[in-house]
Amino acid sequence: MAIRTGAQYVKALRDGREVWHAGRRIDDVTTHSGFTGTIKTLAELYDKQHDPETKDIMTVEYEGERIACGYLPPRNPEELALKRGNIELWSQQTFGQMGRYPDFCAQLVVGLFDWAHIIEKTNTRWAENARAYHRHASRNDLCLTHALTDQYYDRTKRVSEQEDPDLILHIVGETHDGAVVRGLRTLATLAPLSDEVLVYPNRPREADEADYAIAFALPMNAPGLKIVCRDLYAEHADTERHPLTARFDEVDAALIFDDVIVPWERIFIYKDPKLLAGINYIHTWAQYSTMLRLITKLEGFLGIAQCLTRLAKRNTSISSQMLLSTLMQDIEILRACMKVAADRGYRAGGGTWAPLLSPAYRIHSIEASDRAERTMEGLLTSTLMLSGGASDLNNSEVGPFIDRYFRGGATSTRQHLRLMAVAADMVMTPFGSSTSACKAARWIECDNAFTTSTPTRRRRSA
Amino acid sequence: MAIRTGAQYVKALRDGREVWHAGRRIDDVTTHSGFTGTIKTLAELYDKQHDPETKDIMTVEYEGERIACGYLPPRNPEELALKRGNIELWSQQTFGQMGRYPDFCAQLVVGLFDWAHIIEKTNTRWAENARAYHRHASRNDLCLTHALTDQYYDRTKRVSEQEDPDLILHIVGETHDGAVVRGLRTLATLAPLSDEVLVYPNRPREADEADYAIAFALPMNAPGLKIVCRDLYAEHADTERHPLTARFDEVDAALIFDDVIVPWERIFIYKDPKLLAGINYIHTWAQYSTMLRLITKLEGFLGIAQCLTRLAKRNTSISSQMLLSTLMQDIEILRACMKVAADRGYRAGGGTWAPLLSPAYRIHSIEASDRAERTMEGLLTSTLMLSGGASDLNNSEVGPFIDRYFRGGATSTRQHLRLMAVAADMVMTPFGSSTSACKAARWIECDNAFTTSTPTRRRRSA
Amino acid sequence: MAIRTGAQYVKALRDGREVWHAGRRIDDVTTHSGFTGTIKTLAELYDKQHDPETKDIMTVEYEGERIACGYLPPRNPEELALKRGNIELWSQQTFGQMGRYPDFCAQLVVGLFDWAHIIEKTNTRWAENARAYHRHASRNDLCLTHALTDQYYDRTKRVSEQEDPDLILHIVGETHDGAVVRGLRTLATLAPLSDEVLVYPNRPREADEADYAIAFALPMNAPGLKIVCRDLYAEHADTERHPLTARFDEVDAALIFDDVIVPWERIFIYKDPKLLAGINYIHTWAQYSTMLRLITKLEGFLGIAQCLTRLAKRNTSISSQMLLSTLMQDIEILRACMKVAADRGYRAGGGTWAPLLSPAYRIHSIEASDRAERTMEGLLTSTLMLSGGASDLNNSEVGPFIDRYFRGGATSTRQHLRLMAVAADMVMTPFGSSTSACKAARWIECDNAFTTSTPTRRRRSA
Amino acid sequence: MAIRTGAQYVKALRDGREVWHAGRRIDDVTTHSGFTGTIKTLAELYDKQHDPETKDIMTVEYEGERIACGYLPPRNPEELALKRGNIELWSQQTFGQMGRYPDFCAQLVVGLFDWAHIIEKTNTRWAENARAYHRHASRNDLCLTHALTDQYYDRTKRVSEQEDPDLILHIVGETHDGAVVRGLRTLATLAPLSDEVLVYPNRPREADEADYAIAFALPMNAPGLKIVCRDLYAEHADTERHPLTARFDEVDAALIFDDVIVPWERIFIYKDPKLLAGINYIHTWAQYSTMLRLITKLEGFLGIAQCLTRLAKRNTSISSQMLLSTLMQDIEILRACMKVAADRGYRAGGGTWAPLLSPAYRIHSIEASDRAERTMEGLLTSTLMLSGGASDLNNSEVGPFIDRYFRGGATSTRQHLRLMAVAADMVMTPFGSSTSACKAARWIECDNAFTTSTPTRRRRSA
Repeated sequence: MAIRTGAQYVKALRDGREVWHAGRRIDDVTTHSGFTGTIKTLAELYDKQHDPETKDIMTVEYEGERIACGYLPPRNPEELALKRGNIELWSQQTFGQMGRYPDFCAQLVVGLFDWAHIIEKTNTRWAENARAYHRHASRNDLCLTHALTDQYYDRTKRVSEQEDPDLILHIVGETHDGAVVRGLRTLATLAPLSDEVLVYPNRPREADEADYAIAFALPMNAPGLKIVCRDLYAEHADTERHPLTARFDEVDAALIFDDVIVPWERIFIYKDPKLLAGINYIHTWAQYSTMLRLITKLEGFLGIAQCLTRLAKRNTSISSQMLLSTLMQDIEILRACMKVAADRGYRAGGGTWAPLLSPAYRIHSIEASDRAERTMEGLLTSTLMLSGGASDLNNSEVGPFIDRYFRGGATSTRQHLRLMAVAADMVMTPFGSSTSACKAARWIECDNAFTTSTPTRRRRSA
Repeated sequence: MAIRTGAQYVKALRDGREVWHAGRRIDDVTTHSGFTGTIKTLAELYDKQHDPETKDIMTVEYEGERIACGYLPPRNPEELALKRGNIELWSQQTFGQMGRYPDFCAQLVVGLFDWAHIIEKTNTRWAENARAYHRHASRNDLCLTHALTDQYYDRTKRVSEQEDPDLILHIVGETHDGAVVRGLRTLATLAPLSDEVLVYPNRPREADEADYAIAFALPMNAPGLKIVCRDLYAEHADTERHPLTARFDEVDAALIFDDVIVPWERIFIYKDPKLLAGINYIHTWAQYSTMLRLITKLEGFLGIAQCLTRLAKRNTSISSQMLLSTLMQDIEILRACMKVAADRGYRAGGGTWAPLLSPAYRIHSIEASDRAERTMEGLLTSTLMLSGGASDLNNSEVGPFIDRYFRGGATSTRQHLRLMAVAADMVMTPFGSSTSACKAARWIECDNAFTTSTPTRRRRSA
Repeated sequence: MAIRTGAQYVKALRDGREVWHAGRRIDDVTTHSGFTGTIKTLAELYDKQHDPETKDIMTVEYEGERIACGYLPPRNPEELALKRGNIELWSQQTFGQMGRYPDFCAQLVVGLFDWAHIIEKTNTRWAENARAYHRHASRNDLCLTHALTDQYYDRTKRVSEQEDPDLILHIVGETHDGAVVRGLRTLATLAPLSDEVLVYPNRPREADEADYAIAFALPMNAPGLKIVCRDLYAEHADTERHPLTARFDEVDAALIFDDVIVPWERIFIYKDPKLLAGINYIHTWAQYSTMLRLITKLEGFLGIAQCLTRLAKRNTSISSQMLLSTLMQDIEILRACMKVAADRGYRAGGGTWAPLLSPAYRIHSIEASDRAERTMEGLLTSTLMLSGGASDLNNSEVGPFIDRYFRGGATSTRQHLRLMAVAADMVMTPFGSSTSACKAARWIECDNAFTTSTPTRRRRSA
Repeated sequence: MAIRTGAQYVKALRDGREVWHAGRRIDDVTTHSGFTGTIKTLAELYDKQHDPETKDIMTVEYEGERIACGYLPPRNPEELALKRGNIELWSQQTFGQMGRYPDFCAQLVVGLFDWAHIIEKTNTRWAENARAYHRHASRNDLCLTHALTDQYYDRTKRVSEQEDPDLILHIVGETHDGAVVRGLRTLATLAPLSDEVLVYPNRPREADEADYAIAFALPMNAPGLKIVCRDLYAEHADTERHPLTARFDEVDAALIFDDVIVPWERIFIYKDPKLLAGINYIHTWAQYSTMLRLITKLEGFLGIAQCLTRLAKRNTSISSQMLLSTLMQDIEILRACMKVAADRGYRAGGGTWAPLLSPAYRIHSIEASDRAERTMEGLLTSTLMLSGGASDLNNSEVGPFIDRYFRGGATSTRQHLRLMAVAADMVMTPFGSSTSACKAARWIECDNAFTTSTPTRRRRSA
């Protein structure tokens, strides 16, 4: 199929998937107000892959076909730079506020593709599955999510010794077509809006827990797969008052696998705790994408903060300047880190060119993200408390009063209220909260999971 | 009228007040889903004043009439202790999550009552107005708000030198009946659900800014008074998923005074910057109420955090223990401060018995509140990320799966999901965000406003 | 002997004790420049017990004899208040900069006295030893230290399984006169200047480690007891340039027990891990003393900081004000805690009246102490960097230049330089460092040791 | 003279300079125990410039003569890399614990050399003086200090309006030979051990303060120049117990100019506030040197911390790991910053190749240095409290006990005690304190001085 259009992406979401919210089934995500804004955002980005202005930034010829740059396994520094340009485009188009747009998991599939050289030392079929999945996902320009987190289990007991053995996702049988899996997996962000899901655990399994040691991919409409959404923040979001929520909410979901059959050709690891222990390998390019995206997010924060500070005539205040300078400092430092990561790129085992990501850079970017949240809160709190939003202007009776009294130092009240609405949506809404602390935490879970040698994160609960 | 019932409170809200939200007028707040939950909470508390079990805690005989304890000007330590009991009941019934319920502003009116002895050195009529207002509000058991904050003005210029002289609330004329005021005043929390509003600025006025130096009270349905609400967080809140938002959202509002007439008998300060400079005096009892309420709030945090930590079997984790112990420590310290404040009570100038509130206690309680927020985020973030809520259980198809997979260590999944919903609503919703940082900030603005000798708070933007 | 004079205290130090420093034996501590300043300070305080002005604050009749208030087992709130007055005198005379002056360990002996009622459930002789020791120490007005810390052992192994079984202090034999003990015990502050030492471990022993479970008292000149001093900060301290070091350095020491005989009548616990597990009980009054002393220390910090800030004309700087207000806030909070601790006093099991010390107060006081250090550094660093000291004035050639150029905003250069020298000595010298971080840590070790349920302190290394 | 030997450096210090300490004149610094250790360190480094192994790292041919790399104005990236190698050698030889060794000020002179192209737009003679001074200092291989700080003046008043107009260094006259200057200048680190001093203020002067706007160089033995030392930390330092103090103490000093004549040919700015305002320009290469040195210092901290943690068997403790990982993270980040600074090098206006130092990198390095201090304290405090030092082993009587009891997990007690002594000297001595907080502060003063647009540093007093 090659590069998809937005319309093609939207159409594919109407595939009978079983999506639940607040005890009600959502038959068609493409018409539900909890999803339409984000779907529109993603569809526009898919369309941009065809736009002459952005086509060459976002897509590339690879083995005779045009694919999204996210799916390109870079063979040299130049191709890695190409990918960086594409990552920056995706993140800038979404103000750094989305984390699971298609580019992210595409990078995971690149990692899987490269890791195949390790898999094949154990099992050539699985290795071929991995490479084939890269072909499948890149040639069909898929939007993927991943599901790595086990939850609600008793952490004082081993995975295999839980009271309910079916709680944690595991293999319960085999058929001619594939393995049968059962159990829960959580934090599948964007799941209701993805084509497929990559499934593997973010904590290692022990030698006698083989049934829990599996990695695979699956379409979202696989029979028996239930997608249970957390709150749909965008459901009632006024675009004037919650401009980010309305456009970018990715909707986290829990996946319940009710004896789902995973086709044999979509399995990359099967009952193999030892191989699974090394799967962290595949995260390199996705981490690079996330760290570049965080820079964009911080830049967005800084821009908004500077505007609002200036409009409130607080730009000469020393405390405002100090808060802003913290943001600037972190952005500069992260840019330096990303430059070095690229300059010190290396050829990974499977032949793909990889950025050298020091754990120090990753941790710094998480800390910077935390700091940025706090900074925004410190800067904006009192200003934002009564953020109404430009919709207040729409009434002919009260509108003129709003227009007169809420202009601040701006040239137009509408502009001012929109700016404030963006800022408020960055820090005070559930969307804002979840893109910050939660997504950072999520990212850590995903990414530090197997690196038990790295001390788990400072100042976070175990 | 004496002590009101919930029904009387509700009925009084249907008084033709001009309430706006998102460009639409709300004709009757008592039937709008953005308000009904909070109205019900307050109505139940008004009813409790008649309940034999709580009547003597919440109300008291004063000068021959039964009034709410909040309105009692305590004459001795025992009466101050009586007020404390009532404050604790209000705060416990609302988990410390409300800040502007009637008890709060009642304490301000007590302050005003006592301060009359100062006012009368300048003007006996205003002093009598102050005392009369205490009679009026206490005998009619009113629910009040206050509006102290000037916003959207250019802070590099003086109040009287703003580009638009009408932006900041000020006197524009006089009639036989009263003074005519025009301009904006913000952060009137609970304004759409209050009976009346106390209005005075939280920053001093200079000698030549007499038109901006006024303090008065006004019913919410005063002609020309427009109440512009920020987002109605409760509007679409599922009680199972956002139990706090649905019950306790207080709705901040901006008040636009479109040439409103303030009756002469409701004016406490008129064109008198010098007298206004001392108005901070009246805050003592309200601050006491707020600090006691914060203890309840922290206790609520601690309880929820302990439950969830135990259910997630993380109670033996050192990092969890450290986070919990921070909460415990702050609660203990604040209790000690409050005990000392009462033990060191003193007779205020107007004859009322006052708690001795060191600025140190106030600042500590704000810092403790900040720390508690962070602690809750640290403890709960990863657990809460997919908080769906008990409504997921209501469907016969997906409900059994939810019931099986989301129980955690709890005895009932419903109980578990409700607990998680409360926790999420404490930290991740706009309600939760606004009760923490914002309300703290608001409180600071209100309360440190005139104490310019006290350095404004650490780590907050100027 | 009853209340001693300073001369008696000094004379008693010439008892043949074996004191070592830097590989050299110090024959007479009373003539060594590393000790004379501190000895003078303590001797003056002993003399004050006879001074009509302070006698009744510092001493009290108890069972027919006059004893130091520190040794008084208070029988009611009034006697506890009496002890508080004495504690404040000691701490104010030493600017809160000493922690182990005689009053501190006297409070431990009070604890031991009260705890005797528990000991006697196990062993009446040990209980009688405890009570007799209180008589002995109080009637002879002794200056004691304690030695609780085991060090240099492999913490991954149990106490009884160390490579060198003699490393940790333990019982190696018995004679007619007493038990024979061998091994190391560290952090015996003031040991070279004390009359006797209280010895017990600050970590519990397991059931099969009976030889390591012993508590006793011993004179510092016991044969075989070697006192190895850390650096003698005061040795070369110019009183003009290091006024605190020169007067208050308490000298930490390691004690090496080379088969020392502990008389049977000085043993309070013998081969009894179970009884030892409860010894924390005796710390109550000593902790009270320490917390009161920390308030004095913070007050001293605040006073110096305010003076220097004013002299440097930085008192209007917002950042200076914020730093100072942190100090003020902590002092106020701690005062509230101490008032509540006294107001909520209770009768301990042995009949002594005890302050109710919440762990929250203790932890807060440690944190406050840390914060004060940082605050002082933040405030003073740049000012102090060239602190010379008033001795620079003593030369007729360069003195006049110093006098002219180093006066700052003070009325006299000598006064200014002395003030700066005190401030520098508070934060920049080894004395200052050790009275802050280290002594706090030491106190924690001593006091949280057995309370393993309390999470060990935040932000400190395990 | 070209590259000097250590002996030549030492000999040159005996030049009649007027050095004062504690009211006493020091006639010959080369024989005074407060200086001999540091002089030996520097002399050995001068000798290394002749050592075949290090000669080509430390020196370079420039315009026909061999000069120290520090004095090389790099003309291209390769020469900048050469300088970096030399900087790393100096900092590694001194464990990053010295900040003012000759390499540092040599870099300032390189800055001055390059800045001459700006000076000459105003005054060609001063520009030639600047270039000539580079020739003079580099050809004579001088050890310089600088003196930038005005102190003890009333900061609420302008420089020119101080009560004593002679307090702040300024021009008071002219002679045939040069300008006559009078007043105080502080924080001249290493002044008693330097050959000459660079003098200019670190705060701008206003247009009417021309007499205070001067930049020049001067030999330390200039008539009328008095060097007043702060405490000589090394004076009584046992090399076994204070190994860093004994080797690296740089001795800060105040300089009193008692009508000193500054030769016309050593003046670079004269009564020119406008030109002075741009002098920050010359700091670039010196800042680069400092930031590279800080990395070495952090590496030293990390190494010691890792050793001690391992010996104390605390390396598996999570809290230790977290503290160590903070250090590692900061080192990695700073390395990335330094790589980018070099990779993005640019040709400065005067033709010299410069590293691109973002203010973000500088601030991060200061913060990292602060964090490292805290980390070391957190890690080492309790271990270090009784650090005696290997000298305790030297006595045949007590030595064997020390040897037995203080070995910890080390292979030799002497090694262990030496390690602990280094660690203690890093954080607990006045040397350690002054190399951290103070030197950082000093550096800030020097380097942020003129960049008033940059908010002064967070968390530091104004």
